[in-house]
Amino acid sequence: MTPDVEKSYNSAQIIMNRLETFFSQSREKVDAVLEGLVPSADIEPSRLHSAVRWSLFAGGKRFRPALVFGVGRVFGVDETKLLRTAAAVEMIHTYSLIHDDLPAMDDDDLRRGRETCHIKFDEATAILAGDVLQNLAFQVIAEDTALPPETRIRLITGLARAAGTPHGMVAGQQMDLEAEGKQITIEELERIHQAKTGAMIAYSAEAGAIIAGVDETGRRAVTEYAAKVGLLFQITDDLLDVTQTTEVLGKTAGKDLTSEKATYPSLYGIEKASTLALDVHDSACESLASISADTSILVDLVGFILRRVS
Amino acid sequence: MTPDVEKSYNSAQIIMNRLETFFSQSREKVDAVLEGLVPSADIEPSRLHSAVRWSLFAGGKRFRPALVFGVGRVFGVDETKLLRTAAAVEMIHTYSLIHDDLPAMDDDDLRRGRETCHIKFDEATAILAGDVLQNLAFQVIAEDTALPPETRIRLITGLARAAGTPHGMVAGQQMDLEAEGKQITIEELERIHQAKTGAMIAYSAEAGAIIAGVDETGRRAVTEYAAKVGLLFQITDDLLDVTQTTEVLGKTAGKDLTSEKATYPSLYGIEKASTLALDVHDSACESLASISADTSILVDLVGFILRRVS
Repeated sequence: MTPDVEKSYNSAQIIMNRLETFFSQSREKVDAVLEGLVPSADIEPSRLHSAVRWSLFAGGKRFRPALVFGVGRVFGVDETKLLRTAAAVEMIHTYSLIHDDLPAMDDDDLRRGRETCHIKFDEATAILAGDVLQNLAFQVIAEDTALPPETRIRLITGLARAAGTPHGMVAGQQMDLEAEGKQITIEELERIHQAKTGAMIAYSAEAGAIIAGVDETGRRAVTEYAAKVGLLFQITDDLLDVTQTTEVLGKTAGKDLTSEKATYPSLYGIEKASTLALDVHDSACESLASISADTSILVDLVGFILRRVS
Repeated sequence: MTPDVEKSYNSAQIIMNRLETFFSQSREKVDAVLEGLVPSADIEPSRLHSAVRWSLFAGGKRFRPALVFGVGRVFGVDETKLLRTAAAVEMIHTYSLIHDDLPAMDDDDLRRGRETCHIKFDEATAILAGDVLQNLAFQVIAEDTALPPETRIRLITGLARAAGTPHGMVAGQQMDLEAEGKQITIEELERIHQAKTGAMIAYSAEAGAIIAGVDETGRRAVTEYAAKVGLLFQITDDLLDVTQTTEVLGKTAGKDLTSEKATYPSLYGIEKASTLALDVHDSACESLASISADTSILVDLVGFILRRVS
């Protein structure tokens, strides 16, 4: 290596290490909170709580909680104020995975490297485990005594919009199912992804800003950043599905292709989809320009998503 | 008829008429609110919103909203403060019906006299319609500007507990499914019903008291009343299942028997279950004694439930 390349390599390595530390700390924190918030498997109905825990503690990346913590850190929020909201976004995410994996939906047997909830338990229990996780997500924010009632209400309203319909997660899943086997346009694809995954990722970042009580400019910057992050996440997810093995992914690879789902690589081709990912990454970083606080953790985060496919 | 019998008959008729009026007014009010709160079928994803509306506007009794209105009326609450909470409890109830009817759960084709959601649409859409109705229930309370944030938070917390786990509706449905084909005790049966239907019925009454901001004594009286109402509702539901036809019920009759569910008539026999219903009715009325306001509407309401089987 030339000295310049070595320097740049070392600096990339430093960022990666810093981010790894941030992610593993976020994961530890949110897991500890989730542990205390979800009824233990000893409590009846034991099978329901076991199923919830099976899916919740399957070693997920905890990317959405990391966004809550990341934005909160940028604006100097006391961490205890972020914990339950971080747990709530992961609960919503896990409930959506449990329901999406059901035979009537994506019919998947493998998730986060192990059996999906309905395979390990049964379909009825999996439906109810998803239901109860959605319920609990709203409950843990409503009961968050670290935050004033007004803030809790804003968080619950935002969460419900991001997870619901017509612009949120459930609407996106419905549109995604309906698009299977159909020719759809890039605009339709973006609308689906924006609702299905984008809205909850954007909310996770916004939630940090709501808790921090930042001004309108800061809020708008975070929202814009978060929207780009959501989009980048989807593009890289689509790319990983065609370029990685099932073993590496921890979920069935090539699934989008066999189920005839429209994806960025299927509509643009792998190369153009990769270029698009790079553009969206840059634009996410630019969104942060108006924030005077140190946003390096958010820049690192979006870099991390891009590196999943590069 | 002797003059005395005629007098008593007329007075029962007056109560029934008054209650019919109350129920139909409640139904009209909550339906108008629901109409405005649920995305129209024109809005994408249209199939999802059509499915939600199919199940929500199937001519249900709107018993839970009537409890919200009834308790609110007793304590003189301005009606505009009750509307969204009344809508929310009906959304939770309908979501639970949609999911309970799924093939993996009770596998029922008929509900409120017409095809269940997954028969009319498809399983995936039915799962998502249930998901989105649960979501919307929390959202409409969070966005209820007629109430201060503190009240909204109390309502959301109570709703989540009543609809969730370990003492709420989803926990009850899980326990109910697990009890199928098994010999269970009366205590286990009561625990299941208390969670599955009792908690949400009790919450509907309590919500009226929360919105009214009544004192601890009043709250406790309403809670006790509501618990009895929930129990009575379940006993009479079980009795109706064995004594009525599918046509009259609007859902498949004799279902409990064929699915080997433990019910009050199956554990006690029809006669003893009917006597129990009468006792619970009387005890519900006694719970209201400490309330100084005119509670006649609540007395009428519990009488209405009893008369379903007498």
